[in-house]
Amino acid sequence: MADNDLVAALLAGDVAALARAVSIVENGRDGFEELLSTLSSRMGDARRIGVTGPPGAGKSTLTEQLVAGFRKTGLRVAVVAVDPTSPFTGGALLGDRIRMESVALDSGVYIRSMATRGSLGGLAISTGEVCDVLAAAGFDRILVETVGVGQSELDVASIVDETILVLVPESGDGIQALKSGVIEAADIIVVNKADRGGAELLRREIELSLDLRSGRRGVSAKGWRPPVELTVATTGAGLDGLMTKLDGHWEWLAGSGTLEARRARRNASRVRGIVERSIIRSIWQNAATTDVLNHGLEQVNNGTLSVYQLGAAVVQSVQTRQ
Amino acid sequence: MADNDLVAALLAGDVAALARAVSIVENGRDGFEELLSTLSSRMGDARRIGVTGPPGAGKSTLTEQLVAGFRKTGLRVAVVAVDPTSPFTGGALLGDRIRMESVALDSGVYIRSMATRGSLGGLAISTGEVCDVLAAAGFDRILVETVGVGQSELDVASIVDETILVLVPESGDGIQALKSGVIEAADIIVVNKADRGGAELLRREIELSLDLRSGRRGVSAKGWRPPVELTVATTGAGLDGLMTKLDGHWEWLAGSGTLEARRARRNASRVRGIVERSIIRSIWQNAATTDVLNHGLEQVNNGTLSVYQLGAAVVQSVQTRQ
Repeated sequence: MADNDLVAALLAGDVAALARAVSIVENGRDGFEELLSTLSSRMGDARRIGVTGPPGAGKSTLTEQLVAGFRKTGLRVAVVAVDPTSPFTGGALLGDRIRMESVALDSGVYIRSMATRGSLGGLAISTGEVCDVLAAAGFDRILVETVGVGQSELDVASIVDETILVLVPESGDGIQALKSGVIEAADIIVVNKADRGGAELLRREIELSLDLRSGRRGVSAKGWRPPVELTVATTGAGLDGLMTKLDGHWEWLAGSGTLEARRARRNASRVRGIVERSIIRSIWQNAATTDVLNHGLEQVNNGTLSVYQLGAAVVQSVQTRQ
Repeated sequence: MADNDLVAALLAGDVAALARAVSIVENGRDGFEELLSTLSSRMGDARRIGVTGPPGAGKSTLTEQLVAGFRKTGLRVAVVAVDPTSPFTGGALLGDRIRMESVALDSGVYIRSMATRGSLGGLAISTGEVCDVLAAAGFDRILVETVGVGQSELDVASIVDETILVLVPESGDGIQALKSGVIEAADIIVVNKADRGGAELLRREIELSLDLRSGRRGVSAKGWRPPVELTVATTGAGLDGLMTKLDGHWEWLAGSGTLEARRARRNASRVRGIVERSIIRSIWQNAATTDVLNHGLEQVNNGTLSVYQLGAAVVQSVQTRQ
């Protein structure tokens, strides 16, 4: 299938073409940047929503409920589950994927796990590119689910339009979130598993923390105070309220110019990432450069050259050659 | 203090000079690469030992016990605690640092937390560089403690000579570790909190998994089968056995040529990281390049140019200029 055919099939809603395009992009196969460039003019106006939080907060179940909620209004929904290739959460995520099968059989839903360990340019950039493919394929909502631990996941949060932070009572995560300032990245805060003891207490702690923020009664510099929503994702309790708050946030985002500013910031970081990835790739594809590296490494390994001296020599060979 | 004075003071064991050198390197301040290059010929033969595992496995307490064990034989010990700037484990790690104060007052012990979110070249490279400074300062053992979640922590594991994987019964982490193959990165496996139920069961699961590995009765391609040690870090039970196994592993590492091979691999990846960091820095320090970027972003933001087209334009401007 030629690329034009692939693009045409993708735009026509062919699921096999979509899966193939996502794989090409996720794995950075030949021609993936041309594919993305072609698709970039065809992207619809998908809302990209991040769902983040600590392990065990019920993010997958909540995501599943959000998918069901969007489907009720006829919207097409894609889910990208980002697995930071953690040896300890990897299995759990796989389990979640299996559980999400209740919505996976719906043809208006597409679910994809990302576990691009060591992919060119990192997880955030390739996740953003997969979202681009999904946007071109006509999905109205793209949910990006990440485990809220580690830098790569925070990077992922920067590629969505809005972020839902999911916390649970009793775990102590709420306090950590408040202390660490991660709450600053949240547009909507969900206290999930709210049928457990401590949900109201956690909500009050969060509200108090928001009250104290910036001395402006919890309203961010741009004029948004994150609502705190109580949900029980396993039963669907609180989901209607959350959906309403999501729509309210989107209206604010678009109306206040914040959406435009966020997307501009995202574009800038995307371009930087693309440039860095391309330049680094071209460095190591050059045989003369790898020769300098390999010969120098012999000296480094026998202790006659430092890694910094060799690094400087390689940089010089790159810069004098170009 | 001129750099020569700093180096001299560091080599003489001055703690303030050490702290200053580590800060310069950790934050990539002016002259940090020259400093590292100078120190690289003065590095002793420190053993670099990684301690990794899921949150709550007792890594810090175990690390503290290892420090105490090494101190008994008069060795100087440094601990680098790598905080992957997780909003949810950050606070916990801070707590661990405070708990480790029992050894922190010992002048033969140096403890440093790394939380270099967004540092140039990533956490692994700067952690490796901090270890270099500590090696030059004459520490005999350098323990690198990481939370075993996410890519950056796995990268960190690649910068040490040997890795201890710490698991606990009942958490299900053991199964995850076995399934995910993280166990392949472990030289010694510790079942900590072994006074809890399930420790023997977890040990048997791990041993079985090792039996099945590669069909060679758990012995890796290079001839090492990771021992599984039961410990209770809070009481020190099992620590003597672990220390003995660590020494045995070191002997095997050195004698089999594996240490040399690992260090050669580490040198290669260090040089690559240094080169990439340097080239990326020079790209964005160039005013002409950032001009191309900033002008192009206006077109990207109004939809007349794709991020890939702009990326290609920036790359071309970099390559034609050099």
